[in-house]
Amino acid sequence: MPRKIIIDTDPGQDDAVAILLALASPEDFEVMGVVAVAGNVGLHHNATNARKVVELAGRKDVPVYAGCARPMRRTLVTAEHVHGDTGLNGPDLPAPSFELQPEHGVDYLIETFMQADPGTITLCTLGPLTNVAMALVKEPRIAERIAEIVMMGGAYFEVGNITPAAEFNIYVDPDAADIVFRSGIKLTVLPLDVTHQMQATPERLQAFRAIGNKAGQAVYEMLSFSQGFDLAKYGWAGAPLHDPTVIAYLIDPGLFEGRLCNVTIETASELTIGMTVTDYWHVTDRPRNATYIRSGNAEGFYCLLTERIARLP
Amino acid sequence: MPRKIIIDTDPGQDDAVAILLALASPEDFEVMGVVAVAGNVGLHHNATNARKVVELAGRKDVPVYAGCARPMRRTLVTAEHVHGDTGLNGPDLPAPSFELQPEHGVDYLIETFMQADPGTITLCTLGPLTNVAMALVKEPRIAERIAEIVMMGGAYFEVGNITPAAEFNIYVDPDAADIVFRSGIKLTVLPLDVTHQMQATPERLQAFRAIGNKAGQAVYEMLSFSQGFDLAKYGWAGAPLHDPTVIAYLIDPGLFEGRLCNVTIETASELTIGMTVTDYWHVTDRPRNATYIRSGNAEGFYCLLTERIARLP
Amino acid sequence: MPRKIIIDTDPGQDDAVAILLALASPEDFEVMGVVAVAGNVGLHHNATNARKVVELAGRKDVPVYAGCARPMRRTLVTAEHVHGDTGLNGPDLPAPSFELQPEHGVDYLIETFMQADPGTITLCTLGPLTNVAMALVKEPRIAERIAEIVMMGGAYFEVGNITPAAEFNIYVDPDAADIVFRSGIKLTVLPLDVTHQMQATPERLQAFRAIGNKAGQAVYEMLSFSQGFDLAKYGWAGAPLHDPTVIAYLIDPGLFEGRLCNVTIETASELTIGMTVTDYWHVTDRPRNATYIRSGNAEGFYCLLTERIARLP
Amino acid sequence: MPRKIIIDTDPGQDDAVAILLALASPEDFEVMGVVAVAGNVGLHHNATNARKVVELAGRKDVPVYAGCARPMRRTLVTAEHVHGDTGLNGPDLPAPSFELQPEHGVDYLIETFMQADPGTITLCTLGPLTNVAMALVKEPRIAERIAEIVMMGGAYFEVGNITPAAEFNIYVDPDAADIVFRSGIKLTVLPLDVTHQMQATPERLQAFRAIGNKAGQAVYEMLSFSQGFDLAKYGWAGAPLHDPTVIAYLIDPGLFEGRLCNVTIETASELTIGMTVTDYWHVTDRPRNATYIRSGNAEGFYCLLTERIARLP
Repeated sequence: MPRKIIIDTDPGQDDAVAILLALASPEDFEVMGVVAVAGNVGLHHNATNARKVVELAGRKDVPVYAGCARPMRRTLVTAEHVHGDTGLNGPDLPAPSFELQPEHGVDYLIETFMQADPGTITLCTLGPLTNVAMALVKEPRIAERIAEIVMMGGAYFEVGNITPAAEFNIYVDPDAADIVFRSGIKLTVLPLDVTHQMQATPERLQAFRAIGNKAGQAVYEMLSFSQGFDLAKYGWAGAPLHDPTVIAYLIDPGLFEGRLCNVTIETASELTIGMTVTDYWHVTDRPRNATYIRSGNAEGFYCLLTERIARLP
Repeated sequence: MPRKIIIDTDPGQDDAVAILLALASPEDFEVMGVVAVAGNVGLHHNATNARKVVELAGRKDVPVYAGCARPMRRTLVTAEHVHGDTGLNGPDLPAPSFELQPEHGVDYLIETFMQADPGTITLCTLGPLTNVAMALVKEPRIAERIAEIVMMGGAYFEVGNITPAAEFNIYVDPDAADIVFRSGIKLTVLPLDVTHQMQATPERLQAFRAIGNKAGQAVYEMLSFSQGFDLAKYGWAGAPLHDPTVIAYLIDPGLFEGRLCNVTIETASELTIGMTVTDYWHVTDRPRNATYIRSGNAEGFYCLLTERIARLP
Repeated sequence: MPRKIIIDTDPGQDDAVAILLALASPEDFEVMGVVAVAGNVGLHHNATNARKVVELAGRKDVPVYAGCARPMRRTLVTAEHVHGDTGLNGPDLPAPSFELQPEHGVDYLIETFMQADPGTITLCTLGPLTNVAMALVKEPRIAERIAEIVMMGGAYFEVGNITPAAEFNIYVDPDAADIVFRSGIKLTVLPLDVTHQMQATPERLQAFRAIGNKAGQAVYEMLSFSQGFDLAKYGWAGAPLHDPTVIAYLIDPGLFEGRLCNVTIETASELTIGMTVTDYWHVTDRPRNATYIRSGNAEGFYCLLTERIARLP
Repeated sequence: MPRKIIIDTDPGQDDAVAILLALASPEDFEVMGVVAVAGNVGLHHNATNARKVVELAGRKDVPVYAGCARPMRRTLVTAEHVHGDTGLNGPDLPAPSFELQPEHGVDYLIETFMQADPGTITLCTLGPLTNVAMALVKEPRIAERIAEIVMMGGAYFEVGNITPAAEFNIYVDPDAADIVFRSGIKLTVLPLDVTHQMQATPERLQAFRAIGNKAGQAVYEMLSFSQGFDLAKYGWAGAPLHDPTVIAYLIDPGLFEGRLCNVTIETASELTIGMTVTDYWHVTDRPRNATYIRSGNAEGFYCLLTERIARLP
């Protein structure tokens, strides 16, 4: 039976590929809804992009919600320098032909988790954790009803990208991340450590194009655009691919390796704020609150991704 | 024309007196609603107490809402050592005979401010600022629609009460306070500096009892209970009275003196967290974001309070 | 028998008055040495000023040392805006006719305390605590040999002067202060709370001039200069007088009131760094490490000061 | 002409190997002195161990000094769990037959650098930076006279060992490290990133023993002892070897790769305190203050080490 998931996201080219992967995998997922949050770009763009991507997958039946337009406490930082001014530069996708749901994304999360049987819905987060944390503060009882949160975010051995110590998703709203990591909810973290291994080499990019469908072409164009920043920065053969690891992990956890350990969010120091301080070597007695994924099988990951994208229109 | 106000509160004996003062002053206030928040005691007690107090004033028509049951990021700290296990120990008030509104207090704030004309409703906060901050994150546009926030909270020359550096309301949810103080909303702060001058001497307490009505007797019993902690701590002739200063300030600002200056909330250091760092002497160039009330006319304050409480049943 | 003291200082007009008070009181003090530290102005000026003041008192026999030219960790902040470019603007004192001792002030402290019987020498600090803390790190055994440290520094009810949360002496080297306050040495603190009560009204200033000696004239000219900043800032009848309270306290502790309590130095947050967080009301269980002086008898203080200054040349 | 160096150290088995490597390389180094500091174990043990090691190398002519017995601000943390109760467990080295120099290590550093021509002496630090920072505060002018500091300390991609965020040497005295990293002195950092690549496999350990001299046998026994902790923790084929990389780098920098970038020490947050926040990817505009070595040639390193140790008695 497919797993029920909600995707909370700030698309973002790599978010888009993650959403496509989920929607291309009906045997694995029942995508109940997509919730946008401010992050890579502003909420307005993200909410539009989410609908464009759902529509690209031919799934206008999936409801899309807009959540929070700002982080809890800090001023919004965005990443147009990576994703372009719309957040989804690269392909020329048509404006969405369906509306956002009228309900606020935070309330959608609360109502959905309060109405469903406990432990039946998994939350996949691909952006800052603002919506999730706001829902936890507004209705604390959802903590014990969320089956699991699988998130792209954080960094330990690869440390930061937006600052020397912090990864973007956590940095944008470290207070929200702190709330989530101390919530007691089962957590699995796909950090830069693993996403930096998933490099979109030219061959892998061409494989998407070679599929010959609209989705493959769009993935090719999206990743061709967003790779620019990282290729210039790291000088690697291919740019990291982040968010689709969340969906791939849920489809085939055997592609990944990690460890249950403590992850604590730095919120006190401006120098390191947003760092996911990971006790990977168990040198403290802090409680083990997250499965921290350190490495993955890049070849297997791209095979899965290409195969699934090929099923889309 | 009376001023439209919403009271956000965690009653609390002194919150109760503040609510009574507002409800006893129809020429000054149209009390649109009362919203409970976790603080002095847990949300459940506060939401019950709010209704008890509204009913004591004979105003079951005022809708009461329950807001957040926890602070945004920190673990809830309560003050049963001051207020008693129910938060309203002292008088034997009957259980409320009317229900809470079904809507969440945060959504009540958002909807009320979004529907009313901008600048027409004042928000009076008597407890932690969780509900207000949550509303600002969930719907940032309310910031420019709130006429003013007048709050009891903070301390500068009297520094802290719950810690050496922090006053209770701010300490319970410093992240929420930080959001509010950086929101751009017009703020007036009634801190310990002024509330420590408003000492409920035995004569002043007896004056409430001498009124001879139910409300006066209840005020007498409430403050007789809650004064115990502060009298033992400070060794003063009377205990401070906090929250009613907010309502008294709106009725007669001439009773108070203060200054527009910068107030910044300490959120980075555990030692001083929740401190309202007040640039009273303008030694920095931080923006002047709050009117900080430093002193008040205690005799005038108690006269006003006694006169108004006398109007109640 | 007079008490043996060492004065560590950054003169500074009020430091100068404190040194004069000590040197004018041979029945109370044997001034073993004076050590300069960077603070109000740079070390070079402070070391010169210390000798000028000793010479003004006719006591070229008192050895003067130069200690540290910078705080331990932070960049030096000075206060020429208060004290003038030399640190001792006001009177026209002659250049000193004797040399600094060749030994570093930190080593002078270590050697003096290691050679004397334990508990026989009191350390009076009138500036940043850099020299003292450096000595404690370099030779930890002096901690149990210092009879007591009596310091001007800090603020609680009067909070800060250089920032809204910090007093100048502590702010300049909060790391040094932290070391001293956690050293286990007996501490007495004369903070802004008490020095703001010691206001140099025009009558009190004139009383120094009226003595008719060189020292009285110099005190009058020094304080007439340095009062300018505070009078403009606070609008009071007289400017606070800080450092002489340390010497006056040792002469007549009955002029002062205070309490043994915990004082912890804020070092973690830039907003409040250098704050002397004082648990005056014993709301925490932190160890009681300092006698914190909260108030004093201003009339008695100025009487003592004037009487003693009159004995000098 | 051999390079003049001073070694500041807390031996420690790996410190010992570093000292042996330096003393075995007269064509590369004139070792002017060795200064002990509290770190791996207490100062008393470290000062004894330093003399044992110098004597093992047959170089009783090298003067050994004791510096600071405690960190600047924090309570001393030691690592007997790694190094054994003496700090040099493993071989049975005889008690040293020569005395410590009477001068304090901090004063030795100051005098040596003040007397030598500027830029002629390199400082090699293998432990906490307390002595160096104390010297910089006591005599700031040495900053421009030290040719270079080459240190073992810190971690970025390998993050921490004593905590999830901090390497031991920096963690023990983060305030000292902060002073050094902001001093303007030319810095080269050999962090865990590179020392974790220098794994002492059984073959490499045996190679020391196979030399057949006293020094080789001692190195074998020392590293056989100290490897226990790390092998259990990491499960690797060999334990990391830290401090000798400093000396090897000076002998043959071609064995190492790194980058000039900003390194800032975290001092504000207890969670991450002591972290060397390294802007390896130049994502900030902080000044480039250190050459951060990220990787090294382990085979070349062990060849060099074995060859040089073979020259000793």
